[in-house]
Formats: sequence, structure tokens, C-alpha cells
Amino acid sequence: MEGGALSSLETPALVVDLDKVKRNVQTMKERCEGGGVRLRPHMKTHKTLECADIMTGGSRRCIVVSTLAEACFYGDHGYDDILYAYPLPFDKVERCATLSERLDLFQVLLDHPEALERLRRRPLAGGRLWHVWLKLDCGNGRAGVLHSDAGAVQLAQAIAGAEGVELTGVYAHCGNTYYCKGVEQIQAVAQETTDLTLQFMEKLKAVGITCKSSIGSTPSCSHPVKDMSRLSEVHPGNYVFYDMQQSLIGSCSLEDVAVRVLTRVIGHCPHRNQLLIDCGWCGLSQDGSGKLPTGYAVIEGHPNLKLASMTQEHGRVEPLSGALDFGRYPLGALLQLIPYHACATAMMHPVYHVHSGGRLLGQWRPTRGW
Amino acid sequence: MEGGALSSLETPALVVDLDKVKRNVQTMKERCEGGGVRLRPHMKTHKTLECADIMTGGSRRCIVVSTLAEACFYGDHGYDDILYAYPLPFDKVERCATLSERLDLFQVLLDHPEALERLRRRPLAGGRLWHVWLKLDCGNGRAGVLHSDAGAVQLAQAIAGAEGVELTGVYAHCGNTYYCKGVEQIQAVAQETTDLTLQFMEKLKAVGITCKSSIGSTPSCSHPVKDMSRLSEVHPGNYVFYDMQQSLIGSCSLEDVAVRVLTRVIGHCPHRNQLLIDCGWCGLSQDGSGKLPTGYAVIEGHPNLKLASMTQEHGRVEPLSGALDFGRYPLGALLQLIPYHACATAMMHPVYHVHSGGRLLGQWRPTRGW
Repeated sequence: MEGGALSSLETPALVVDLDKVKRNVQTMKERCEGGGVRLRPHMKTHKTLECADIMTGGSRRCIVVSTLAEACFYGDHGYDDILYAYPLPFDKVERCATLSERLDLFQVLLDHPEALERLRRRPLAGGRLWHVWLKLDCGNGRAGVLHSDAGAVQLAQAIAGAEGVELTGVYAHCGNTYYCKGVEQIQAVAQETTDLTLQFMEKLKAVGITCKSSIGSTPSCSHPVKDMSRLSEVHPGNYVFYDMQQSLIGSCSLEDVAVRVLTRVIGHCPHRNQLLIDCGWCGLSQDGSGKLPTGYAVIEGHPNLKLASMTQEHGRVEPLSGALDFGRYPLGALLQLIPYHACATAMMHPVYHVHSGGRLLGQWRPTRGW
Repeated sequence: MEGGALSSLETPALVVDLDKVKRNVQTMKERCEGGGVRLRPHMKTHKTLECADIMTGGSRRCIVVSTLAEACFYGDHGYDDILYAYPLPFDKVERCATLSERLDLFQVLLDHPEALERLRRRPLAGGRLWHVWLKLDCGNGRAGVLHSDAGAVQLAQAIAGAEGVELTGVYAHCGNTYYCKGVEQIQAVAQETTDLTLQFMEKLKAVGITCKSSIGSTPSCSHPVKDMSRLSEVHPGNYVFYDMQQSLIGSCSLEDVAVRVLTRVIGHCPHRNQLLIDCGWCGLSQDGSGKLPTGYAVIEGHPNLKLASMTQEHGRVEPLSGALDFGRYPLGALLQLIPYHACATAMMHPVYHVHSGGRLLGQWRPTRGW
């Protein structure tokens, strides 16, 4: 299949434009270098070795992951300096310990004194330290101890003071940028998260603690504010692919979106003014429901088409207005769906087909599970 | 892990209650035997060998699949009499031909004269016949030639008359039962689909054609109408697991639902009156959004809890009313989510953990892709 055209692929198929991936990676790298902040790219969107190599420039160092399965996968393939940025799950402490003892720099994250207690109860072999990031909630409203909570500084002190444990850094995820529209709103959230994180770092300094700081999210790192250069690291991930959601938020232009789901017309339903395509939620995910005028995706080059509904393996496509010109969409015709949320769409595919300028280069296979 | 308790599993984890699976399978089997109709179980919900063995009573014969990947997977493992119940995709004709030449009875489905033409252009080796089902739309509004369309009988005649091709049967999917509430509505749709299919069979008979007939969907086959015994086959699939959706439709009782997603509490957010759990859409799918008063799932044994929102690996749980009793949900506490749609949830898991009465028996691994 290598060297073949996209049209040689069976559908549905997730295709990745390597040139766009490389451009997105390069742009983010330059942006971070320009701002003097270290880029720790997140692997959760793609979960493949090949894309991780591109994102790390081949160093195989300094990444962040969302599952322990990813951490093990990358650890097994020569990666190191891995941050498992998820509130320490009590059922996975032993696996985390094994990775910590095996890698040079495996890092965990926590936001509760009980999690610290779990680490203390499992000292690492050979006098190694647990490398711990404190998760701070700066307004995102998901995991993390609230930045304004007096317990936050206490927890940082407890981590810093615990035997066998090192406070590596403070980590805040500004996922609330996903509710933004446009650069101004994104930068307002980025500024607020940065300010609150830096204020927290000052509080730590006042009690004699210094450590790294990191914030992230693709919108904020696509439009960083100046003060982010005062942080140690940023940790975006989705930017490698981008998607319709990021384009609507204002993180990227539609041109930057590097992934498509290829699909074919498998049915004509003139009595319903609909086409059927061979991509249902099994190939696209159900993300984006109700978020786009064109339904669950944008159909590239066909702005009047809407992916109106999906079942497991079927999609129903209809015009936004007027009568469908069925002659334009013969059975077997190839369409390209621009996904609403690349992380969710990629998750549905056991294989990604990589191309440059429409010529297939090979396949990437993601890791799955937890 | 075998013999272990469910609590020994790392989360999120899809767990399958083997006793319920066997009971659901036995009930459906007896129902079909009682009605004198052949059961051709659908594999799309689970896509595993072990569950297929239970559904076929070990015969490894007479199944229906939604993807060619499933057909190949089962064909590679000794299964035969496989119906690939999907509008013949033009990009997969060669793979279908290979399966047709390799298996005793691989069957395809079509709803358009062009698809028949594709089969005619690829005669099978050794004088074998393409075994073809005609897909009929009896009101479901997805794939299939409309039952009332004059072209439907013509297409059946064309299939029956084509060289190298056999008209094996007429296939209708009554997925419109998914819009029903209660047995009466389900049976009205089942009756209508049955009537329209049988009327179509009469039309075929009038032009000298006899072949099999099949309708299906889990709701209709869970509450069959008497006339369904005049059909050759039925082809439900979801009944092996059932789910919240089926319970709300009225296909089953909540007791029959054989799958859960195990999840653990990973965060306390008293300032938001929320718990965080380690199951996001990556472990549950996004199906069911807005369909349940308790959010994306039902949390077993905790009717006042709602899975209010999810991101990739996090779920936010809050009470329907009142203040959360955090002492009741310590960090690490195990919760069981009853999924809205088992097909969508199972799709997210590379491994299913099978248990009997809470004791782990082993793992099932599904096939994926297309």
C-alpha cells in the first residue's frame, strides 16, 4: 500500500497528513523556544511511537501521558522522562513503582494527601525518589487541589518534606480554554492560569520550596501569553493533529488540521434526500454531537453536506438545503470527514494511515487500554 | 487474576457477567425455538470468539457480522455460515470473494443494482456462487431498498437471475424499534416489519422466486410477534449483553444487563459537590448523552449519583440532589457503571473481564477495525 494513493485505502480509514503534523510540531517547538519554555508534548491524542518521535524530535525524552498503559508502552520503547499526568490511581501504585525503578525519570502526579501516603508506603528500591508533581486547579474544574485552598501549599510542603519523595513540579491544565472563542478569550484564560500558577510558586518560595511549573492545553499553547515564559514547561498534545473543535476555538486554522476519516458512499436514499456512508460512530466517535452546523463532522470540499446521524457502522448524510445531486456522489465515491475532536476519533482506530501529499507512507499503530 | 474478585481489577475495566450472558443467550434461543424461527446471532456488540461460541452453542455456524474484519476474524477461527450484513462495499469485493472461496457459506448483502454488477464482474473460483441477501428497508430508514419500491422486486429478480449469484434471502433490520417505549410499541414495529417482509416474499413468490427471510433487532426479538415464526431467521445481537437503552425501551429488565464498567473514585471536589472517577469517554463512550436522568450511565446501587460529564479519562459525578457524603466514597472506592449502550462501550475496550458471581474467570479480546 506504501506509495499508493489515499483512494487505495479501504474505508473507513483514519489518515494523517505527515507534512501538517511536522508543521504543527515545528510551529509549537519554535513558539516554545521563542518563549523560553520547555515543551513537554502530550501523547494522549495519538498514542503512537512514530508520532512521539516527531513530537520529541527523536530525543524520546520529556513527554506526558494520560494512561499508565501509554507510560509503559513508551517506557518499553526507549522513552524516558515520562510524566504520568493523572491523579495517582491507588490501584496502580505498584506499576508506577516498577516504572519509577526501571526508568531514569518516571514522574507521577497527585492532588491529595492520601495519594502521598500511598507513595510513602511504597518506598522505591535503591534509594530512588518518587518524582511527584502537584496538580493544581486554576479554574479548570476537574482534577487538582484548588489554587486558593490553603491545603495546596500544605500538600506541596508535605510532598517536599516526605522521605523518599521529591516535589518535582506544579502542574495545571487549563482545559477551560476549550470553552473559549477566539484568541482574546484563549489568552485571558492562559493569562489567568499562568498568573495563578506563578502566584502559587511564589507562595511555595515563601515557605522555602522551589520546583518546576507547567501549564498546558492546546489552545493556550497555540496562543501563549508572554508570562508563560516564566513557567518551566508547557504540555499541549492535541496540536499535533488539531481538529474542527480547535479550529472553532481559534487555536488553529482549518488548514492545520492533519487528520481525516476517509469514507465511501454506500447508499443512495432519494426518498429521504440522503446518502449513506460507511463511517458510523465506530469510525468517527460520537464527539461533536450538536456542535457543528454540518453535524458530526465537516465533509471536506462539500460545505452543503451534513453528517446528520450515525449508527455503529453507517452515517446518514444530507444537504443543508436543497435536493441532493446523487450523480455527484456515486456509490463508492470517497469523502473526507474532518473530525470534531481528533483525540476521540483517533481512539476509534487500531491503525492510522500516514501520507504526504496524498501518497501513503505507512501505518502507525496506537497503544490502547489503561 | 483468575479466581480473583472484581476489586482486584485495575480500572476502568469492562466486566461481563457470564451467568447473565448465558441466561440471555438461553432465553433468546428458547424463544426462537419456540417460535420455530432460526436464530442467527449478531456479533457486532462483542466481537469475541468466546462470546460467539456461547451464542452459537459451540456450533460456530450461522452468525451475522457488521464488518468484514469480523467476518475474517471468525472465518480464521473455524466459523462458517457467516452473513456480512452490510451494503456490499465496492472497495471490499475482492476480500469478500476470497472469503466466499474459502468458506463453505459466506454471504453478502446488497441493496443496489450496481452492487450486483460488481459481484457479476468478479465470478468466484470453482463455479462457486455468491450468496446474496437483498436488504429491504421496511421503515427503519437506513440501508436497504424500500419495500414499496417497484425496483425492490426487480432487484431480487436480477439477483436470482444473475450468473454465478444466488439470491439467498431477504434481510430487514428493524432498528426503528429503538425509538419504542414498552412491549406494545416494540411489537407494533415488529409486526409491521414482519408483515412488510412477508408481503414482499409473496411478491417474490408471484414472480417465481423463493428464498429465506430474516428480520432483527434486539427489541423485536426480545418481544417477538407470532407472525415472526413465518420468517426463516432472526438476527439480534445486543441481547447478549443488553444495556440501559434496552432496559428503557423495554427489551429487558435491568437485571438482565450483563456488562458494567468498573471505575474508581480518584478525586474529591467538595467545593463543586463532585467526585472524580477514572472513567471518561475513553472507557464508556459518549453514547447516551442527555438520555438518562443520571447522565451518561447508571451508577449501580447509587441512584442519587449522576455521571454529569466526562473528558477523555475523567468522569465528574455529582448527586442528583443534596450534598455529597464524601465519607461514603473514599478515594479508591469502586463504582460500577451500567452503560447506556453496550455496543458503544464494549468498542472502547481492548479486553473484557469475564466473571461469575464476582469471581474472575478470564479475559475476552475483541477484534477491531474493518
